Formats: sequence, structure tokens, C-alpha cells
Amino acid sequence: MGMNVVVIGGVACGPKAAARLRRLDPKAQITIVEQGEFISYAGCGLPYYVGGEVKDINGLLATPAGAVRNAGFFKKVKDIAVLTRTRAEAIDRSSKTVRLRDLASGAERRLAYDKLVIATGARPIRPPIEGLGLKGVYHLTRIEEALALRETVSRRKGGKALIIGAGLIGLESAEAFRSAGWDVQMVEMMEAPLLGLLDFEFARMVELALLENLVTIACHQRAERIEGDESGHCKRVITGGGACEADLVLVATGFRPNADLAREAGLAVGPCGGIAVDEAMRTSDPNILAGGDCVECRHVVTGKPVFAPMGSTANKHGRVIGDNLAGGHSAFPGVLGTTVVKVFNLNVGRTGLSEAQAAEEGFETVCGLAPGHDKAHYFPGAALVAVKVVAEKRTGKVLGVQAAGRGEAARRIDVGATAIAMGATVAQLANLDLGYAPPYAQAMDAIITAANVAENKIRGVARSVGPREVKRRIEAGEDFILLDVRTPAEFESGHIEAKQTMNLPLGELREKAQSVLPKDKDIVSLCKVSHRGYEAQRILAGMGYEKASYMDGGLFTWPYPEDIA
Amino acid sequence: MGMNVVVIGGVACGPKAAARLRRLDPKAQITIVEQGEFISYAGCGLPYYVGGEVKDINGLLATPAGAVRNAGFFKKVKDIAVLTRTRAEAIDRSSKTVRLRDLASGAERRLAYDKLVIATGARPIRPPIEGLGLKGVYHLTRIEEALALRETVSRRKGGKALIIGAGLIGLESAEAFRSAGWDVQMVEMMEAPLLGLLDFEFARMVELALLENLVTIACHQRAERIEGDESGHCKRVITGGGACEADLVLVATGFRPNADLAREAGLAVGPCGGIAVDEAMRTSDPNILAGGDCVECRHVVTGKPVFAPMGSTANKHGRVIGDNLAGGHSAFPGVLGTTVVKVFNLNVGRTGLSEAQAAEEGFETVCGLAPGHDKAHYFPGAALVAVKVVAEKRTGKVLGVQAAGRGEAARRIDVGATAIAMGATVAQLANLDLGYAPPYAQAMDAIITAANVAENKIRGVARSVGPREVKRRIEAGEDFILLDVRTPAEFESGHIEAKQTMNLPLGELREKAQSVLPKDKDIVSLCKVSHRGYEAQRILAGMGYEKASYMDGGLFTWPYPEDIA
Repeated sequence: MGMNVVVIGGVACGPKAAARLRRLDPKAQITIVEQGEFISYAGCGLPYYVGGEVKDINGLLATPAGAVRNAGFFKKVKDIAVLTRTRAEAIDRSSKTVRLRDLASGAERRLAYDKLVIATGARPIRPPIEGLGLKGVYHLTRIEEALALRETVSRRKGGKALIIGAGLIGLESAEAFRSAGWDVQMVEMMEAPLLGLLDFEFARMVELALLENLVTIACHQRAERIEGDESGHCKRVITGGGACEADLVLVATGFRPNADLAREAGLAVGPCGGIAVDEAMRTSDPNILAGGDCVECRHVVTGKPVFAPMGSTANKHGRVIGDNLAGGHSAFPGVLGTTVVKVFNLNVGRTGLSEAQAAEEGFETVCGLAPGHDKAHYFPGAALVAVKVVAEKRTGKVLGVQAAGRGEAARRIDVGATAIAMGATVAQLANLDLGYAPPYAQAMDAIITAANVAENKIRGVARSVGPREVKRRIEAGEDFILLDVRTPAEFESGHIEAKQTMNLPLGELREKAQSVLPKDKDIVSLCKVSHRGYEAQRILAGMGYEKASYMDGGLFTWPYPEDIA
Repeated sequence: MGMNVVVIGGVACGPKAAARLRRLDPKAQITIVEQGEFISYAGCGLPYYVGGEVKDINGLLATPAGAVRNAGFFKKVKDIAVLTRTRAEAIDRSSKTVRLRDLASGAERRLAYDKLVIATGARPIRPPIEGLGLKGVYHLTRIEEALALRETVSRRKGGKALIIGAGLIGLESAEAFRSAGWDVQMVEMMEAPLLGLLDFEFARMVELALLENLVTIACHQRAERIEGDESGHCKRVITGGGACEADLVLVATGFRPNADLAREAGLAVGPCGGIAVDEAMRTSDPNILAGGDCVECRHVVTGKPVFAPMGSTANKHGRVIGDNLAGGHSAFPGVLGTTVVKVFNLNVGRTGLSEAQAAEEGFETVCGLAPGHDKAHYFPGAALVAVKVVAEKRTGKVLGVQAAGRGEAARRIDVGATAIAMGATVAQLANLDLGYAPPYAQAMDAIITAANVAENKIRGVARSVGPREVKRRIEAGEDFILLDVRTPAEFESGHIEAKQTMNLPLGELREKAQSVLPKDKDIVSLCKVSHRGYEAQRILAGMGYEKASYMDGGLFTWPYPEDIA
């Protein structure tokens, strides 16, 4: 008889740990316990099922080869027993047993283990809002909820959906509801969507993508209560800003780790509320390992524990757990909080620390922000993607990367994630031998340019001002020149309307600067993507304009479209 | 008066060096000398102009903002003098002068320099073939050639093009000629296209993509002579395999560095025929720097000099040269031979060493080959891409990555390039926190799976046989079982026809293995992508089948479609 392993939790980490263990140890007795009906499903795909992009729910339940991953599949293919609709209610570490309840019959029993894996995932946060129990109020984390939501949104067109929380699931669901022909409003507590993950200018790009796709979003507001009709169905949502009609409310205000079982068993829990584990995914009890959304991970840059629920991480945890259960010595190095998300036609991503997060962590940073084309600019279908590299000023180390645009973003994020994990400096990032051919990239990819910009700032060659600061100076009526160095035709097609704005094309700058630009004034140059803006700054610096700077990101990342005339 | 800098060569590295120097040093006198009419054009885009994807030749000559980069542009924007149609004929290092010839007037003059930059690029190899001087025989490296080719292929549909050499330009041109409605034949010396860059199974994927798009390719053959008609126009090409009619011949047999000027001036030239430079891009003369396709680069993995002409590298060289001319201390760390290329609907890429190259360099390697979807497998538009990770067995260090498929490949190559440049092991690569969301990736990306496979091999958990070896064993009539573990329906839709083939679905393997599979025979399991094949190997190993292995890559990378029935 082999070692007896019980795995609590049947999605992502749990099945992965079990399957890996089986491949390494043909003799182990392995049992997965799952309280739901479905196991090993692709939870991240749920919004795409709701919106109809994924036609068949089996797509989320099956392997790429089409085999549905149910209990029978696990038994036959992997020799792993799966108990669905079975809840683990308590862990008795002294007797090494788990108390289970069969949710159909209500019967209770005990299951003994030699080694236990806790992979209980996360659960949606229930915000303090009245009316969460009304009909028509949903979360979207389980298959059953996705089935109900798809049924609801496809039953009639033109309903009104209100989404509380503009995080990943809220954003993906907004697109899903729009695809199904619904009106969508969002309410978000923070100043812009994803502001916890992205710096302001990127968060604003997300917000603008929503507006472009006719999703209304009220930022800096809380949903206070949901009101229902006589039948107990939601009808409207009262927010700080007023009332919104809503035939459907999706509560997407984030997750917290499902660590109750572990906590009640006396296992150590970390500062973010997740189970504390070491690099080997061991809990404070050497016979119990844990992984997936119920644990805390080490942040690779800060070394601090973070809660970063992500299916990709859960799978890696599962593999490490399987290895170590089989006597191996695998380690999980930690996470970078890497996130990519499609917001309608905007591709968005981030990894490592944002500029704001880096500042909170006490880093002195420089940032390179460079919008560039995702393919050669002359290649059909080329689109812009803005890439921001956050680096530590003293060492040049890359701390974070963000990307957003119609252009491909995930690739730039993955390069950033790899570079940061390996401790790269901006100079190393800038000299990477990345793939180049017109259908795939510019000769100098935006991430390379962004790294070069950061290096130029470290060396004092590039001097820039962020768009928020430019906005502040405009609104304060400060005396400076906002020098738009694009062509007159580009300028006419849309520019920042302000009394400080002046148009002088880059090609005329060397010739005319002396006659039209005073040397004692602050000059902030800009163009579409900040390339010519930077060139202008260098030209002016060379002519003795000591206060010349340029605006980061140019008009492409200007967060205030209402100022464009 | 500032330092007097002369730059020889007006494409990629030269203009980049000049522009960077200007941004750092407003006082330098900078002159670019270019023998052609055009400067700073996007040479890599030429095939896409020929095929009509790029409509306007100005797309290749202009900045993303639409300004044509001609002499006037460089003067006005960058204060850089450009002499076009001017050939640098000799460098006199003692007097620090360059002898120039004006190609229009034939006049000769001397230009003095304090610092000289050589960026003379590469030139196409002229293979020893009779008839290269006939009309209708082209290279494709200059704007003028692209204009002529586009004119030729658009004048009439249905002409016959013959391409000598299935390298990058040959492959891109094949697609261009097909887009223009021409028949295309290719002649390639090696056993498969791109075999110098890719391992056999990937090179065969390229070959199959050509065949699928009705491009005939004759591998392992040389073009011997081109025959013309009475008017001196090419008519047919005689190869080792016979005669091919050809209204147009494109000679695309690679490049060699244009180092004559440097060599004649007594500068050191390396073993690949390129100018020898150090990390600062200095030649053997401290007053002369060189970069771009005329120099040799250090290979980051082997440390050896290589010739790796690439626009992206040339731009990085230019930046380093500009920095160092301005008194900086920038270094170029070297290249990985990263290459990405679109071959019709196949995305192909490679970085670092192929398995074959690594063997030549004396590395003992293991390889992980994993086809996987580029998005979540259930997401619309998801397509397979095969990723191969080549690692050093002793250290686990990643030496190379290859990728090919209809699915996105360049992203996986860029992650590989970053990982290799930073010295990552397969364990580090496998645990990278890459971006995950259904529209962009699977929870476990193919490159992560490939790294895990390599690690499994290092640990002896995974045992595989390559497809070429399987083919050899089939053809030798060896006594082994080729165990296809897909479903009967998948099996019927196409399998390797051989007397050794047996179908036993993975789901029945545990139950039936003992009764149908003898323990003393070699068993090689396989499926579509090798995931179930590997699972089968582990199941069999667990049951005591000590000789069980699986076939790398499954049917997806099986290089012999003629065997599929």
C-alpha cells in the first residue's frame, strides 16, 4: 500500500497536485474532495461562456482533446478517486483525519490521510451592501453561476446590468454583457478601474475603453444598497451618486483566500489572510501542503507575502506539491502579480510593481513610458501599445512593466516578467535579442524603447513631466509652454486645448526656437507618442534651454480626452 | 567646433548612431555617407512591399508619423548632413580621411574625421551559378530591387517564380509572389528550409507550410545554371533534379558582411568575415567604431563570434556607438540569433542554440517539446504552437527555444530570449509568472510545459524518442509497439500507418495494458501533442513497463505526413 493522500479542493491546484503525484508515484492512494459538482474546470473562462464566445460549457470542463474531466475521467486515466458534492468540514491533525459531509445525504464521515493538500481556493468578497440576497444578484466564480447568468442575459436583449467593482471579472463581464446585447453600468470605489494594479494613466486607458464601448462607469463611488421589486428581484442600485436601474447586478468586488478550514485546524495564516506556506508549499504542519488561491505567495520583487489568485500560479503550486509529496525538492519562487486582461479591444497587462506601488515600497524610481507599434509601423494591422518600465534609480533594476493598447500587450508583459524574475537592469532589458520581423515587431520594440527611456532618465539625458502634473499646471494656470511638435495637420486633428499650448513642428524647431521660445520659461514638449517630444527636449537642451522637458507618453496616454480639441 | 564624425552607411546602424550622438552632443559635426539613393529605410519590409501588403513604398521610408527620412529630414530635424549616391572608397587611417566618390559626377574627394563609424551592412551572396546576369534575375535587399520586383509581379498574374534559397528572404518572398498570383518553386541546398536555424522537426513544419500554400520546394538540391532566351531574359533554371521554367529568378542565398573597406584599411576582421569589434563596438582602431550587418557579434550562449545580420541588432549597435562617441561607456552584450518569420499562416521562431547546434558546441542536452494552444484551448481562435526548449543536461540551463505553429510564436521566443540572456534554468523558466487570461494564454503556457518536460527528462521521469528515430525504427522494421493512445475516433481520422502501430485509448490503458502489451517489448506511446503520450509512459512505467517511452511532440510535429493514413 502506498502513501494515503487527501486533496481538499477539485479545481486547478488540487487536481494538478494529484495528477503530478500520480505520475511520480504509481502506488499512492489519492482522493480529491470537492464540495461542488464540477471539478477541474477553467474558472477563468466563465465570463467568456456568459458572453457566448465560448459556446459550450463543456469547453470549460474538458481537456483540449475533448475528454470531460469528471470523476470517471480521473479514476480511469489517473487512478485518482474524486468525491464531489462532499465538503471537508474539519481537519483533525492529531488523528490525521478529515471530517467530510456528503452534501446530498447529509451523512458525515472521516477520511484518514498520511499527507493532506489544502487547495480550497478563494471566495468572492461580499461587500457591506444591503440587498445582496435579492434575485438577479450574482457572483461569477462557479459553473452554476455562469450557467444562470448566460441563461439570464440570453433570455432577453437590452436588459440593464450593473456591475459592482471594475476588477478583472467585472471588466470581462462588462464585455460579456455587452456581447449579449445588454446595457452595462459599472460602479468602482477607486478613482479608475484596476487602479490597484495599474498606474493612473494606464487605468484611465481602461476607463476610456469602457466608455468607447458604451459602458458607463462611475468611479470613486460605492454601491450602498440594492433595492428589489415586490417579487424580490433586484430593480435598482443606490450609489453615492444616485440610483441606477438594474435588471441584473454582478458583485465583482474581489476575492479573499478560503483559509477557514486551515485556520480552524490551527495552521499558520499570513497577513493577507491566506494560508502561510514555505517555498516547498508546506504549511506550518509538515504533513499538510497547500496551494492555489487559498495561500499567500512571496512577491519576487519585495519579498513580502501577497495574495495573488491566478489559475496559472495555482497550477504551478500543484506541480510543486505533487513533486514534494513524491519525495522531491521542488520550490515555488513566488509571483510578480502578473496580470493580463482584454477590455473589449484594449489589451492590458502589468507585472511586478507599478510606479505607485514601488513608491509605497520605498523605492526611488525612474519610469520609461513608450507607446510603440506592435508590428512594423507600415505592416497592415499594426497598432500602438504603450509600455511603461518602472526601474530603481540607484541600481537600474527593472521593478515593473505595464502595457496597454489596441496592439499586442501580453508579449511585452511576459518579457517584462521574465526580466524582472531574473533580476535584469534596464540596460539588460534594452539589449535583449528579441524577435524582429515586420509581422511581429518593430526593430526597436516598445519595451526596449521604454527601457532606453528609463536609462536616459537615470543618466539625466531625458527629462520628462507626467501627464497628471501637466494637467495640474494647466489647471493652475501656470506660466509655461506646452510645445506640441507635431505637424500642423496633426495638431489640427486634435490637441490639448490650453492657453499654454503652442504648435511648432519638430522640423522647424532648430530654425525657429530662438525667435519664438524664451529661455527662461518652462517648456514641455509633446507629440503623439513622446518620441518627437523627447527629440525636441534634446534639441532645446542642446540650444541652452535648460528647463526643457517633454511629456511622458505623448497624447497617446493623455488621460483627459475632454481637453482635446 | 565639435568633434567631426563621419558615418559610412545610411541604413539602420549608421543613422541610429548619428541620431543618438546628436541627442547627446549638440556640437558634433556629423556626416552620413551612403552610396544608394535612399537612407534609413526598412529593409526588412521589402518582401511585404513586393507582395502588396505594404501598399506604398514610402511606408518603408517614413517615420511612424509619416515624415520621409531623407537628407532634408536629417538636416532639419537632426542637424546631420547626409551625402547620398556617394561611395566611400577608402579609409586612410593615418590622415584620418575617407576617400569619397560622387556616383553621379564621378568626382572624388576626401572627408576628414575625428571619429569614423563603419556601418556598411551586408551584401547578398552570389552563388556560383551561371546566368546570374540575365534579365529577370533578382536579389531583394534594396529599395530599387523591390520596386522592380513589384512592377514585374504585378504586371501579369500567373508567372512562374523560382527562388534559390529557402532562408528568411526566400520564404517571405515566396509568400509575396503567391500573394501576387504567381506560381512559386524553391530550390534549397539543405535537407529542409531554415535547417541552419531550426531543428529538423521544425524545419519540416516550415516545408509543409510551403506545400500547403502550393509552393513547390526541392530540398537537398542546388541550382546549377540559369538559362535565358534570345532576348537575354531568364527562362529556366537547371538544378540537380532537372529543369524548372522560370519567368523570374530570385537569388536569396544569404548574406556576407560588407567588410572590404575595413579590411583594406587594415582593420581586424573576424572568423565569419565581419569586422571584429569589442563590446563598445570599437574596431582595432580606437578612432573607428563599427556596427550593424558588417560586424561580427558575440553569441551570448557560446561566447563565440557569429554573423547575425538583423535590423534590431543594428539599431542597438547604433545606440551603443552613439553613446560611446559622446564619451559614454555603453556595451553591447551580444546576440542569441533570435529569428522570427511568418511563412504564410505559420508563425516560426528560434533563439539561442538549436538541439543540433548545441550538440555541435559539445553540450549534452535534453529537450522539452510541447505543442500547446496560444490562448485557452476553448477560446475562439486558439491555435496550436509547438515550443521546444533545449537545455544543458548537467546544469539545467536553457540554451535555446524554438516555436512554430498557427498559434502565436513570437511571444514564446521573446520569453525564451530573455530567459537565456539572463542565464535561466528550466526550473526558473517553468516557474515564471507569465501573463494568463483566456484570450492570451493557457494556464500553463506551452513554453512552461516545454521547460517542465525538459526538467522531467533531466530527472529521468520523462523518457522519449524523437520522431526521426521512430521513423527509422519503423523503416528498419524493428519489433516495437507504436502505441497511439488517442480515442478511436481520433485514431481513425489519421494515424501513422505502420505495422508497429496499435490504438489503445489512454482511458483504457490502466485496465487493458497487462493483457495486450508485453513487458519485454519497446513501447513508444503517442497522441496529438504528446501530453497523453507522456501520461501513458508514466502509467506504463508505474506498471513495470521499463522500456516504455513516448514520442516527442506527438502527431503535431510528426515530420512525415505521407505516413499518415
